[in-house]
Amino acid sequence: MEPQNDIDDLPKNPANFTALTPLWFLERAATVHPTRKSVVYESKHYTWQQTYQRCRRLASALSQLSIGPGTAVSVLSPNVPAMYEVHFGVPMTGAVLNCINFRLNPLNVAFILGHAEAALVFVDQQYFALAEEALKIMEEKSEGLFKPPVLIVIGDETCDRAPLEYALSKGVTEYEKLLETGDPEFAWKPPRDEWQSIALGYTSGTTANPKGVLVSHRAAYLMSLNVVLTWGMKEGAVYLWTLPIFHGNGWCFTWSLAALCGTSVMLRQASAKAIYKAIAEHGVTNFCAAPIVLNSIVNAPPEDTILPLPHVVNVNTGGSPPPPPILLAMSQKGFRVTHVYGLSEINGPATVCAWNPNWDSLPFEAQARLNARQGVKCMCLEGLDVLDTKTNQPVPADGKTIGEVVMRGNMVMKGYLKNPKANEEAFANGWFHTEDLAVKHPDNYIEIKDRSKDIIISGGENISSVEVENVLYTHPSVLEASVVARPDKRWGESPCAFVALRSGGDHVSHERKLAEDLMKYCRSKIPSYWVPKSIVFGPLPKSATGKIQKNVLRATAKELGTL
Amino acid sequence: MEPQNDIDDLPKNPANFTALTPLWFLERAATVHPTRKSVVYESKHYTWQQTYQRCRRLASALSQLSIGPGTAVSVLSPNVPAMYEVHFGVPMTGAVLNCINFRLNPLNVAFILGHAEAALVFVDQQYFALAEEALKIMEEKSEGLFKPPVLIVIGDETCDRAPLEYALSKGVTEYEKLLETGDPEFAWKPPRDEWQSIALGYTSGTTANPKGVLVSHRAAYLMSLNVVLTWGMKEGAVYLWTLPIFHGNGWCFTWSLAALCGTSVMLRQASAKAIYKAIAEHGVTNFCAAPIVLNSIVNAPPEDTILPLPHVVNVNTGGSPPPPPILLAMSQKGFRVTHVYGLSEINGPATVCAWNPNWDSLPFEAQARLNARQGVKCMCLEGLDVLDTKTNQPVPADGKTIGEVVMRGNMVMKGYLKNPKANEEAFANGWFHTEDLAVKHPDNYIEIKDRSKDIIISGGENISSVEVENVLYTHPSVLEASVVARPDKRWGESPCAFVALRSGGDHVSHERKLAEDLMKYCRSKIPSYWVPKSIVFGPLPKSATGKIQKNVLRATAKELGTL
Repeated sequence: MEPQNDIDDLPKNPANFTALTPLWFLERAATVHPTRKSVVYESKHYTWQQTYQRCRRLASALSQLSIGPGTAVSVLSPNVPAMYEVHFGVPMTGAVLNCINFRLNPLNVAFILGHAEAALVFVDQQYFALAEEALKIMEEKSEGLFKPPVLIVIGDETCDRAPLEYALSKGVTEYEKLLETGDPEFAWKPPRDEWQSIALGYTSGTTANPKGVLVSHRAAYLMSLNVVLTWGMKEGAVYLWTLPIFHGNGWCFTWSLAALCGTSVMLRQASAKAIYKAIAEHGVTNFCAAPIVLNSIVNAPPEDTILPLPHVVNVNTGGSPPPPPILLAMSQKGFRVTHVYGLSEINGPATVCAWNPNWDSLPFEAQARLNARQGVKCMCLEGLDVLDTKTNQPVPADGKTIGEVVMRGNMVMKGYLKNPKANEEAFANGWFHTEDLAVKHPDNYIEIKDRSKDIIISGGENISSVEVENVLYTHPSVLEASVVARPDKRWGESPCAFVALRSGGDHVSHERKLAEDLMKYCRSKIPSYWVPKSIVFGPLPKSATGKIQKNVLRATAKELGTL
Repeated sequence: MEPQNDIDDLPKNPANFTALTPLWFLERAATVHPTRKSVVYESKHYTWQQTYQRCRRLASALSQLSIGPGTAVSVLSPNVPAMYEVHFGVPMTGAVLNCINFRLNPLNVAFILGHAEAALVFVDQQYFALAEEALKIMEEKSEGLFKPPVLIVIGDETCDRAPLEYALSKGVTEYEKLLETGDPEFAWKPPRDEWQSIALGYTSGTTANPKGVLVSHRAAYLMSLNVVLTWGMKEGAVYLWTLPIFHGNGWCFTWSLAALCGTSVMLRQASAKAIYKAIAEHGVTNFCAAPIVLNSIVNAPPEDTILPLPHVVNVNTGGSPPPPPILLAMSQKGFRVTHVYGLSEINGPATVCAWNPNWDSLPFEAQARLNARQGVKCMCLEGLDVLDTKTNQPVPADGKTIGEVVMRGNMVMKGYLKNPKANEEAFANGWFHTEDLAVKHPDNYIEIKDRSKDIIISGGENISSVEVENVLYTHPSVLEASVVARPDKRWGESPCAFVALRSGGDHVSHERKLAEDLMKYCRSKIPSYWVPKSIVFGPLPKSATGKIQKNVLRATAKELGTL
């Protein structure tokens, strides 16, 4: 008889197997650093003990309203303390948190509330009218079957009270009143299964209806640790919320900060001035910002800055590839910029341009160029590659051949809610397909050249809009630049640049000359067919997360007509 | 019809669910920092690319020998490069790595090899005779049915070659020769299931046969991140291996260092001199050491030290509670000591004495006393408490009431191999029972007062041997101290101290007076019934990990007879 070998047979038990969830981080923070500041907003300063109690009150109050597993709870709010608290209080009931971009129009919001089947909506007073309009649309469309979600209004003493008073006059409960109905010692339960959903976020959906990205407790736990590890964040970090929290649950930093027993400094509205002020006042050690926010920091008028910085401030940037000149200017001001790349479907950074000490001795410009690449997979991502879109084979690491970025691992979303077709496409061949186009460099770092839909195809040749933009950004007159395809009789498409000028943008008389200058400048740096054939001056349209809205520009370029 | 709500229904797929395993860290390190030093030992310097290739060769060679899932592969080795490589090469085949304490006797080793049913044993040349003897014992006991495991000898050019030559003369294959048979591009596979075992380590088993602790890939992955997070270790850390790797897979730092793309500095034998030298030569940033090793660092003769340190060196200590005077002396020399507490069944630190910034302004002595506590749960442990051993209820946080430390979470072992009775006891009531006795302080930090079996019960009252030891350590003549129970006619037990003196220990003539001095000294600090009634001078017996062997001392105390 073969001796029994149970080396792999021991079962899981409650002592050695627990569902991975970021919720325990909060309990731990309240135990380890009960009196340390958890959340700071204007004159409101909470401790970890208070935040834990408030989140338990919230979970308790929601449970009393029958909120629990299988239910979505939505929130329309800027970066205020309540926005932090719902990240714990809602999933503590087993429900799924659905953060909604408050810059969407009522029609979009109505679509999301309906698609998510939200049972309750938290609304910051500033966005109460938006929620009301969205609900009205839903009611109109429902043909009498509408069961409206419960509304809870988040008041803000530092703002005009009129919208709050209006909401209260409609009989809506205020957030703080709701908390009062909850038990601060509420015995919340972790999820039974770590695959249970903790969050539902919607893609920006520039072309079609937004898609609902479902994130599991397991993925949120791992991403929370991943951002700390990727960035080397320290215990007790002071984190400034410039990134809107609705955007991918703030890349999971909401939960990471509890893991770090750190402090969240909240801002209703981010601006260069507010950022410099928060660094000086609260000792901010870390913040995340889209390149467009970095641009505003770099170009802030001297009276808005507080320089030199009191200490090195770590900045995580991503969302769109940061132009090297901005990276350069940030370093020169004393910010340490880590470039990461993520997407809604990952709920945080998937890759990081890991700094290579060999770059230390390079000139600043070369460093910025290397650091503008998306880099390598983060510690908690299992697979990353760039595949030829036709053959599905990895592209050579030659820095030239373009393919699609694909990923595999535990931080990838569960899938899109009620969208089997999109799921099938997104998860084809055992990979998550990002639709971002990139090259792989000989050092294994990837560099995104474009979104699939942003690439310009001129005479059958791919033109990376990002590379043309990077060249434009190095020109001293250019503040912001975005390049899209314009219909072109001869070539099919040709690059059309939209440019915001540094000194304002009202040089109408010089525009023609400036356009010629810029084209000439580009010709000296890139292939002639990459040079924009048309240049439009003026401020650029931006999304809630500060991304330039290429879909809007593409439409404008079409309206300009075929060249 | 209720609308279908699949908010929790989306299935796992290969793109969004991967078995958690630390093995990917190696592939990542080889991709991100291929030319960075991975392992340094004497004149051997490997890069991450080389280490990855060597581990793949190893996995390939083992696979050719039919090593795979369900099989244990043992290793008897000090901290040399091969010991690092087996941590990846063995589990890459799906097999389970069984590290054996090389300071055990042949009988113990035979027991472990038999219990683990090891299919193959890697033996460092220095321990070849030990392995040979163990196999002989196994053969003798087997009554002719013995199928010996394959032996592979790890040679070391920096040592006497005789043991290697002897092994080779017996027809044993050398480790490097084995690697040559493997494919450096071997397509290893991660485990199918993260609950699969990656490691099997044996408890020190002071009283009975050692127990085999099984660790899953999931637990090893989480512990690898946990140690990095707990300690705030940096990307590219230079880690000195003073902790024997056989001890809980080096608390999972083996795998963490791949995650950090850091460097392992190997030492065949740790000593204060070697530690100071490695810090100066290799820029060591981190190391782990039992309190006894800290003691040797603190008391090293000036010619063995290189002071001041070139930079702050982070030291993780645990295993047994570090006496406050040693913590104090370490800080004064420029080491930053983090006190963690773990056990074989956790395979790394479960709690950390998280530094509270409020302590910064306290006198050094008070800081050391606070830092000598075991503290709070680490970031990746879900549950920690101190339970009354009779009622199973949490003890009050009064710093006085003693109970048993219990834990719950994903870093807790799968269980003991082939030991249902021990598993039942260890996992009773949904907790892992540590058998360590502790109090909970009002700040929620726990402090271990004793192992269950180390507590001294005198006249029905508990005496914490650790507290008596801590007092003895503050006496200027005491180098090391250990206190155990001695049979006592009147009290049942009374404390008996074993003391190694700072200046040597051969003051036979003064011992009587010194014993009286020490007792008087203790009386001024602790209750009189805690004061050792007998004191024995001389060097203390130690285990392979540097722990004082209280079981040996207990036997000696018994032999001394009833007081």
